Amino acid sequence: MENAFTLSALEAAHAIREGQVSSEELVQACLNRIGEYEETIGAWTHLNHEYALEQARESDKVRLSGSAIGPLHGVPIGVKDIFDTRDYPTEYGTPLHQGRTTSADATAVALLRQAGAIVMGKTVTTEFAVYAPGKTTNPHDATRTPGGSSSGSAAAVASFMVPLALGTQTNGSIGRPASYCGVVGYKPTFGMISRNRVLRTSRSLDTVGVFARTIDDVALAAQLMCGFDELDPDARHQVRPDLLGLANEAPLMPPRFAFVKSPAWDQAESGTQEAFGELVEALGDRVEQVDLASVYDEVFQWHRLVMDVEIAKNFADDFKRGADQISPELTEIFERGKAAHGVDYSLALDRQSLFARGMDEIFEDFDVILTPAAAGEAPVGLDNTGSPAFCTLWTFAQMPTITLPLLQGEAGMPLGVQLVAQRGADAQLLRTAKWLVKHIETLA
Amino acid sequence: MENAFTLSALEAAHAIREGQVSSEELVQACLNRIGEYEETIGAWTHLNHEYALEQARESDKVRLSGSAIGPLHGVPIGVKDIFDTRDYPTEYGTPLHQGRTTSADATAVALLRQAGAIVMGKTVTTEFAVYAPGKTTNPHDATRTPGGSSSGSAAAVASFMVPLALGTQTNGSIGRPASYCGVVGYKPTFGMISRNRVLRTSRSLDTVGVFARTIDDVALAAQLMCGFDELDPDARHQVRPDLLGLANEAPLMPPRFAFVKSPAWDQAESGTQEAFGELVEALGDRVEQVDLASVYDEVFQWHRLVMDVEIAKNFADDFKRGADQISPELTEIFERGKAAHGVDYSLALDRQSLFARGMDEIFEDFDVILTPAAAGEAPVGLDNTGSPAFCTLWTFAQMPTITLPLLQGEAGMPLGVQLVAQRGADAQLLRTAKWLVKHIETLA
Repeated sequence: MENAFTLSALEAAHAIREGQVSSEELVQACLNRIGEYEETIGAWTHLNHEYALEQARESDKVRLSGSAIGPLHGVPIGVKDIFDTRDYPTEYGTPLHQGRTTSADATAVALLRQAGAIVMGKTVTTEFAVYAPGKTTNPHDATRTPGGSSSGSAAAVASFMVPLALGTQTNGSIGRPASYCGVVGYKPTFGMISRNRVLRTSRSLDTVGVFARTIDDVALAAQLMCGFDELDPDARHQVRPDLLGLANEAPLMPPRFAFVKSPAWDQAESGTQEAFGELVEALGDRVEQVDLASVYDEVFQWHRLVMDVEIAKNFADDFKRGADQISPELTEIFERGKAAHGVDYSLALDRQSLFARGMDEIFEDFDVILTPAAAGEAPVGLDNTGSPAFCTLWTFAQMPTITLPLLQGEAGMPLGVQLVAQRGADAQLLRTAKWLVKHIETLA
Repeated sequence: MENAFTLSALEAAHAIREGQVSSEELVQACLNRIGEYEETIGAWTHLNHEYALEQARESDKVRLSGSAIGPLHGVPIGVKDIFDTRDYPTEYGTPLHQGRTTSADATAVALLRQAGAIVMGKTVTTEFAVYAPGKTTNPHDATRTPGGSSSGSAAAVASFMVPLALGTQTNGSIGRPASYCGVVGYKPTFGMISRNRVLRTSRSLDTVGVFARTIDDVALAAQLMCGFDELDPDARHQVRPDLLGLANEAPLMPPRFAFVKSPAWDQAESGTQEAFGELVEALGDRVEQVDLASVYDEVFQWHRLVMDVEIAKNFADDFKRGADQISPELTEIFERGKAAHGVDYSLALDRQSLFARGMDEIFEDFDVILTPAAAGEAPVGLDNTGSPAFCTLWTFAQMPTITLPLLQGEAGMPLGVQLVAQRGADAQLLRTAKWLVKHIETLA
């Protein structure tokens, strides 16, 4: 198979299962892509070609032996360098943790390995998964940022280095890079996927998610990682949903979209505003504009407070050990967090479910919210990762979101469409996303 | 029936159902008790004799009409004056809310009314359910405190004014007054009973509970109040347990008790230490002393921080409206809370489940923890409500506790035995409590 690297994760798994391609051939094809583009894109922080091939050959042996194989058998994935992996170091994008190794995988990683996935390597994260960028560039234009903090994962998937990669979102770290790099980015409902052995930036906000080039791929990966884990204090007891199956059910009725400009609309570039205008027009009576009450303007400030305080708490030891090796951006957050008062922080925490409940009203009339994933195309320049403002509200309210590469900006760069559902309504979110993609194809 | 006021809630409900006593006779008997002792004890803040009798007559009419009746039909109860009631004012033990009325009942109150209970009146609470005492005295000795904050509820039950009364605990507000007044006090697992329309002192600590003279009564009352309520952000989705039935099942094996002196042991009076020594001896091989790691000494400080900050948040408006009408004790807490840092508060919140999980180890070998409910007998003097230190750890860790009036101190005042179970193990807690009471009776 010539272009195995173009396969989606599901297609690749199918091809391997059917013997149309071996895991070794697939991994080799992906490694060739990496060999070709990594110098420009810089998506990886740890990657061992020989070790990846070794795992692939092992996978092939298992398959040929007739053993039962998992739904991602032999498929290579990228893992953001804040998830512990038993084979690769996990360095959190900071010199302070250079060479840090662990004996065990993060629960999310272990679950994907258990499904047969091969961890190709670790992808670049911003410093401590916050704002200071790593080395990664945008695969569509190397002078532009790929977004962050899951920079390497989004870029690796966009440039066909792997079909699937893990990320996390504490503010806009999945939706924004997905939008900038033109891939699908899915952040499930808070508490669905365990964060055990994932760098803790903010317990109240951190959410594990996934990048791929198809909705089916993110649905399958999330489904495989989903489940209760007593090692994550916020993991929910739940039946593991058949997200892939549910995503592929036809909705009983064409879904209804609430077009929410969101409190960040003023930051949207004119190209974004135009593109969404056209999209809304194309959706006709399936969509209605809904304006949020002005109280939601405050979300940015509450989100920042929660993130500041929890960063100050979680990184206190790091600042003690090596404040001089930490970026000015993070230092500023840390200092703000240290100074913040308990009462304000407690109020901000209360706001999380208040805001989510305030949103519930919308979902009495609509299936999902439709809104930009970012202010515009990936900005030129690599010194910052762009504004997360279009993701903040949904992260704060712990709602599931998916970003779809459906639009283009004025420079021809990708522009993501973000769908947002009620907490727990992940299957509905994915199903509606599939409907939207299909609907837009019929229009084209 | 001569002494209807001596009946437990279950006995009274049974007698009413069987026509042995009418609700009016029962309520009248309780009102007579109140008439006799209220001047000394001061358990009530709002009570309308005529209105109580009216409700009772209405109850009797319903029963005689042959309508279906609930498990507490016609039984009078006391309600701590921080639960909203649609008929009586709810004043929070502070002049700042004098005359405050509401149109709806707290969920817990509504559920008891739905079971047929008659709200006799509102019982005295300390100021804002914190430390500054109300007018109530100890029914066993009017020169001593009844404990707080649920002072009136404990005293009313102890003096046979009502068989059942509602309380809440944020530190030691059920266990301590139960111990001082010699009644059963039950604080279920955090999140089991809704706190909707109950004064919010501290969202992370406030727990609704109940006082009665028998274990069956507290089991039944808790069971009736238990259930999910979307109006309490921490209410748990759960199947309503048959606590009364489960409490009355014989344990498969005689239960094992972990005698935990707790970090407060140094505060225990010599009479308490002696009485517990004898109790432990009497339990023989069913009990083993377990020493907590010294890290638990820090619980007091973490608990205080959480309570300080949440009080500062929740009472900010009250202090704005009338700081001069608020006690120095509460003002001190408020000022501490305002000054506390978000990082420390966030750390303290993390400790809640850490401590609870640290305790889980004990429950691999033991059914319940056995420990004092208070340092000793109710202290002489009415200017404070005694030390909550023997309750703090279990409130902080959100574990269910029951206090049983099994011991006496040197002055002949009651001394409570506190049992503590793992979070969610309420049925086991109650069953073990019943076993203990029976076992001690056989020894006597």
